[in-house]
Amino acid sequence: MVDDRARVDAGKLTEFSVRSLEKLGMPGEDARVMATMLVACDLRGVESHGVAHLRMFYVRRFRQGIINLNPRLKTLAEAPATATIDGDNGFGFIVGYHAMKDAIVRAGNTGVGMVTVRNSTHFGAAAYYAMMALDRDMIGIAMTSSVAIVVAPGSSRPAVSTNPIAVAVPAGKKPPFVLDMATSAAAGGKLEIARRQGKPLPEGWFVDGDGSPVTDVTKQRPPGGGLLPLGGIPDTGAFKGFGLALVVEVLTGILSGSKASLLHDLPQEQRGNYSDHFFGALDVGRFTPINAFKQSMDDMIEALEALPTVPGVDRVTVPGPYEAEIVAERKANGIPLDAAVLDDLKTLGEELEIPFDAGLS
Amino acid sequence: MVDDRARVDAGKLTEFSVRSLEKLGMPGEDARVMATMLVACDLRGVESHGVAHLRMFYVRRFRQGIINLNPRLKTLAEAPATATIDGDNGFGFIVGYHAMKDAIVRAGNTGVGMVTVRNSTHFGAAAYYAMMALDRDMIGIAMTSSVAIVVAPGSSRPAVSTNPIAVAVPAGKKPPFVLDMATSAAAGGKLEIARRQGKPLPEGWFVDGDGSPVTDVTKQRPPGGGLLPLGGIPDTGAFKGFGLALVVEVLTGILSGSKASLLHDLPQEQRGNYSDHFFGALDVGRFTPINAFKQSMDDMIEALEALPTVPGVDRVTVPGPYEAEIVAERKANGIPLDAAVLDDLKTLGEELEIPFDAGLS
Repeated sequence: MVDDRARVDAGKLTEFSVRSLEKLGMPGEDARVMATMLVACDLRGVESHGVAHLRMFYVRRFRQGIINLNPRLKTLAEAPATATIDGDNGFGFIVGYHAMKDAIVRAGNTGVGMVTVRNSTHFGAAAYYAMMALDRDMIGIAMTSSVAIVVAPGSSRPAVSTNPIAVAVPAGKKPPFVLDMATSAAAGGKLEIARRQGKPLPEGWFVDGDGSPVTDVTKQRPPGGGLLPLGGIPDTGAFKGFGLALVVEVLTGILSGSKASLLHDLPQEQRGNYSDHFFGALDVGRFTPINAFKQSMDDMIEALEALPTVPGVDRVTVPGPYEAEIVAERKANGIPLDAAVLDDLKTLGEELEIPFDAGLS
Repeated sequence: MVDDRARVDAGKLTEFSVRSLEKLGMPGEDARVMATMLVACDLRGVESHGVAHLRMFYVRRFRQGIINLNPRLKTLAEAPATATIDGDNGFGFIVGYHAMKDAIVRAGNTGVGMVTVRNSTHFGAAAYYAMMALDRDMIGIAMTSSVAIVVAPGSSRPAVSTNPIAVAVPAGKKPPFVLDMATSAAAGGKLEIARRQGKPLPEGWFVDGDGSPVTDVTKQRPPGGGLLPLGGIPDTGAFKGFGLALVVEVLTGILSGSKASLLHDLPQEQRGNYSDHFFGALDVGRFTPINAFKQSMDDMIEALEALPTVPGVDRVTVPGPYEAEIVAERKANGIPLDAAVLDDLKTLGEELEIPFDAGLS
């Protein structure tokens, strides 16, 4: 399928985003962290978490005043390898960035660092934080919970958040392994893209209030109904996806002193905004010699990529190396954007009197 | 469905197992650890990992001499929060027991302990090790890898092990949360039970060498074919289950200095025997006050159990509290065993000249 969407330059898109965020009152360093994270998602092909979210998702919330753009993070408890941080209702990208850095420092000291965070807001793509560990030759972990929109097996009432788990692992000559997965059958962002592009959903993603499958997401209406957990139904492993989601609830909401998503009684405007997080880092070299580890990662990735395939499949792909190819192509040829996203960025530019000039010359 | 199988007493079953293992040359303390773990699985209803494995799985291997019953564990590397252990081809239950204890001690010191293990053997049910953390008010984690029998998405060739992940979390008045899940759509043990009981498999568990679904497991034959990853096919999340399996490969095989399951070139008798493991413990009280944490766990579990259900489902169940009900019933009424398992235990008793007397009087 040829991608004939307009393409924009990653560097210019970042600069536009930085200037926009600064004009909205975000400190310059934070604006750069946020812009870099958003564009990194678009570069990786994770369009559900890229600049499509800039105006309608984040800027809208900044304007509503429901996110603290100058938070004072507070360490509520700590041990050599652990910390619990209160995010002061700060912007999730910035809270997450600092909390992950804390986990990395602790891993440098004791071999592992684990940091749980409460009172934060939507932090974008979990992969970004996990990947922060890579250039320190560490394994990175990131998780987050938010509003309950995934049903429990046997119920059609939302019980847990999509609760993504991201894990990044350094490799040698191969690009790093990077997993970033919702513990639901599909991520919330996948629904959003389906809605934006007017495409039907595969069966097994979403159920209605009576538990029946929904393939046209515009037709689903509360009360009840929601995304299915990974595994879909009990026979094919729904209790596993649901169980993983509960692990994320524990490490983010409960361990941080917040609470399970199901029990949050948030005002409407904080639903989908409020978040708790968890970050971890493991210093590989403390476990095993780093060069041998990287070689062993390369060996595994290469062996997987060399597996024979079933008819209709070109090759087996590994998460991380697969996205690295997309990054290389988009760095060379620009990032393709949906027309609606492009229009939205232009509108933001007009609103802020910052010319949107990210098109490829 | 009424369970009309013969029932045996958990205490007597444990004593019979201890005596049998001692007679086979296992040190008495180790024999008790192993017997306790096996019977704990049967009590929890996890019959794939209980005494059904005693003779045909473990004792057979002891007799083959492919497991070291008196291993000397060696710490290859360590940091305050981490260790890498060589299991000396020891029995996985014993290696795992000591490695998990190591993780718990480290968590007591630094807040978190993480231990990776190479050169071990099949360690039974991952849940048992994770649950060792509970009475220390810690969160426990256990993972293991073994022989590749799960296919990669887009391939029908085994690429990863079933790679279970277990997480145990203390609660207050409610039984602890305990998740123990293969990262495949179904665990290997589920296939074994289906084979033992002659039942067909649900679609979505297993594929043949050409990638087509297999529902009669006796009809599947190599080369190729295997269990599907959690999520089944790519549309419903197979890359997530596969990605999780790869995380387990990394933390067990690669981080310990062993290798990915796919790359092991093991002699036939070590296939399904050789294992690498990973253990973790998080000391809850270092993150947040333990009593508030336990109350928050209770609140979540109770809220989940109170969710409305879809037609045909009695109630929403939570992993851990669900199995705790089975434990209570089986402690009171005995453990039901398949006739084949009962015969096998009687045979073991005859072979070792230890009367099998676990029946309920």
